[in-house]
Amino acid sequence: MVDIATRVHNHKWKIDPIVRSLIDTDFYKLLMCQSVFRNKPDTTVTFSLINRTTRIPLASLIDEGELREQLDHIRTLRLRRGESTWMRGNTFYGKRQMFRPDFMDWFENLQLPPYHLDRIGDQYELTFEGKWPEVMLWEIPALAVLMELRGRAVLRHMGRFELQVLYARAMTKLWEKIERLQPLDGLRIADFGTRRRHSFLWQDWAVQAMSEGLGSAFPGTSNCLIAKNRDLEAIGTNAHELPMVYAALADSDDTLARAPYDVLSDWHEEHDGNLRIILPDTYGTAGFLSRAPDWLAGWTGMRIDSGDPEAGAETAIRWWQERGEDPREKLLIFSDGLDVDKIVALHHRFSGRVRVSFGWGTLLTNDFRGLVEGDALAPFSLVCKAVAANGRPTVKLSDNPEKAMGPEAEIARYKRVFGVGEQERVEVVV
Amino acid sequence: MVDIATRVHNHKWKIDPIVRSLIDTDFYKLLMCQSVFRNKPDTTVTFSLINRTTRIPLASLIDEGELREQLDHIRTLRLRRGESTWMRGNTFYGKRQMFRPDFMDWFENLQLPPYHLDRIGDQYELTFEGKWPEVMLWEIPALAVLMELRGRAVLRHMGRFELQVLYARAMTKLWEKIERLQPLDGLRIADFGTRRRHSFLWQDWAVQAMSEGLGSAFPGTSNCLIAKNRDLEAIGTNAHELPMVYAALADSDDTLARAPYDVLSDWHEEHDGNLRIILPDTYGTAGFLSRAPDWLAGWTGMRIDSGDPEAGAETAIRWWQERGEDPREKLLIFSDGLDVDKIVALHHRFSGRVRVSFGWGTLLTNDFRGLVEGDALAPFSLVCKAVAANGRPTVKLSDNPEKAMGPEAEIARYKRVFGVGEQERVEVVV
Repeated sequence: MVDIATRVHNHKWKIDPIVRSLIDTDFYKLLMCQSVFRNKPDTTVTFSLINRTTRIPLASLIDEGELREQLDHIRTLRLRRGESTWMRGNTFYGKRQMFRPDFMDWFENLQLPPYHLDRIGDQYELTFEGKWPEVMLWEIPALAVLMELRGRAVLRHMGRFELQVLYARAMTKLWEKIERLQPLDGLRIADFGTRRRHSFLWQDWAVQAMSEGLGSAFPGTSNCLIAKNRDLEAIGTNAHELPMVYAALADSDDTLARAPYDVLSDWHEEHDGNLRIILPDTYGTAGFLSRAPDWLAGWTGMRIDSGDPEAGAETAIRWWQERGEDPREKLLIFSDGLDVDKIVALHHRFSGRVRVSFGWGTLLTNDFRGLVEGDALAPFSLVCKAVAANGRPTVKLSDNPEKAMGPEAEIARYKRVFGVGEQERVEVVV
Repeated sequence: MVDIATRVHNHKWKIDPIVRSLIDTDFYKLLMCQSVFRNKPDTTVTFSLINRTTRIPLASLIDEGELREQLDHIRTLRLRRGESTWMRGNTFYGKRQMFRPDFMDWFENLQLPPYHLDRIGDQYELTFEGKWPEVMLWEIPALAVLMELRGRAVLRHMGRFELQVLYARAMTKLWEKIERLQPLDGLRIADFGTRRRHSFLWQDWAVQAMSEGLGSAFPGTSNCLIAKNRDLEAIGTNAHELPMVYAALADSDDTLARAPYDVLSDWHEEHDGNLRIILPDTYGTAGFLSRAPDWLAGWTGMRIDSGDPEAGAETAIRWWQERGEDPREKLLIFSDGLDVDKIVALHHRFSGRVRVSFGWGTLLTNDFRGLVEGDALAPFSLVCKAVAANGRPTVKLSDNPEKAMGPEAEIARYKRVFGVGEQERVEVVV
């Protein structure tokens, strides 16, 4: 039986919204937002879209009107009662009331600030400017909207049947990856793929597939909405935007050199356990670790997000050993451009030596490579970053010069201050 | 929105019927039924299930109660008004009123006759006895029920998600076959897979896939219900049961030797064009052709259903040439155990030399090989054949001794009468 009411209702859609909830975002965004809300509420920041894969002409592929409709729709969203209840009532990493009442009161009344959209050639210039705690929440939904609109532009020309076969193939492909992960003893792997997912529904399917196929080896997802709906753990800690903005705010080279540790000092006061994860690569992992205060060695673990992951992990293990810590009690989270081969290799090399965990992103939630003509659904490297704070440009170096960003003179200054020399280039796929 | 009424209705199902229509059967069954209804209405025949793949213990896999429920359900079916309208009003191979009013009147009042079911060890003995025009209509639904119940027995232990991935894989597998057929210039291929299909819904999907993927290279399906629902051509002509029963009725070796030609003489009176297709292998193709009357060489084509198909096709071409016919105007229909490799090879070897056409059966509608543990969904060779007519046993020799059936002494007599010598054994997969 066709449900006539549903059918008629569907015809009334003005748009098919891509982001339908303020918690359809990464858990660490909300954690960082709370930290920023407490420590730097009045900082003015600018976030900007950066398409690192310039051969993808986003503005030719995506209709500007549709993009505006999706972004406008996100500005109509408010935190729903059930979402607020979930955030207030949930246990995250065993801790109750992770989100403080003052933060929740603020979040319940939040509307995302305006956006600025221009077309420059065949790319979009999309920026968000305003108070840091508000603007930072644009990053994930903005990326998800652009990725999904690009997918829709490709899918629009396909028949109902082609679509069915396309998704059958994508499901088969993902399930075969999961089957390769099943034999890995002691595997821990989470979904980190919200920002560059093929679509919300596909991410939701991928999460169910992981959950069904890997059981307790898959504790959860970075996506709060999916974690809530599927009764999984919301996963994440912190990201580069914290040291990048703290660094941009520094008035001198000395404060600049201290900025990454100031971030973690603020974080240390707020969080313990699984949330104490060092992200050391913003201005070069080696220098960061050699200058790090001893209390940081007591943290739970480290996230390896750029450069050669095996080298990064060996550096981390050596550092813990030098600081008198037992690496076998430390957690290493790999999260940079992972796919099954790399996951299997890293798992075999490091499990037993450290506690290993994986944050699997784009190639979990958007691996449609090879499935349509011209590979028009292949994922690409789109980011949305803080580019300025209180009027000053931000800088990121990372352990891979391909991922560096910021004005050239500033990059040079940061390299000097943080003692970063030659770096190995690694191609950025996603 | 969940449609509550649908959900509640679904809970009320006593069974999920496998065969829901009297025209969920092969088109040639109805054509032959009409011929039998006119020429041999009072012949008493016995049809019997034969599992040629004895390592599949059907009676252990399939619950007897469920089997009876499905067979009982088929006995409740009557030709529906829309089905009758389709048969009366449709054009088959360009001809209107293919089914005569007296036949339709009879068919509209038909209930399938009783069945006899016994369990012998781990196999079922399932037989149907009665008037030929009624009993013959059991063949296809009985096979479809057994195939689908065996599939259900395997699927019963799989989770919702495993099922989704299973079908995603099967879809991908079938679509990849279709993609291999797409480049074949002048291809003509129809679905002949009703009897050994994985399930009705899967056959229906396979037909849509073929239609979508191959367009006019896929004229239709042997399944009348699907042809009707999907607005495709119903495809088919005649089968071994006609010569087998005619032969069993023969009173002497002379009438026996003439029986296969008597069948086609009756057929010749009733049908022309695409329905005049010789099926020469029942008692050996070579002898059949060498003794065939000249008017048979004027028929439209020949179906190659056993033995080495390339050898059979060469034999057919030589025979037409010997009888002064131009093979390029003749139609060869390959229909024995086809899969893509064979179809591609036969197409390349014979197109241009004759008009080539394919009737693709089990490996179109039931290729789940390699998709579940222990290959428990692999198709197998199950048939339901006329084993006796007016109390006398039937015999089939075919061009492959693996497909021969009948009492040993009778096989020997038939071999003598039809001059069949040594034959090459070809393994029967499906």
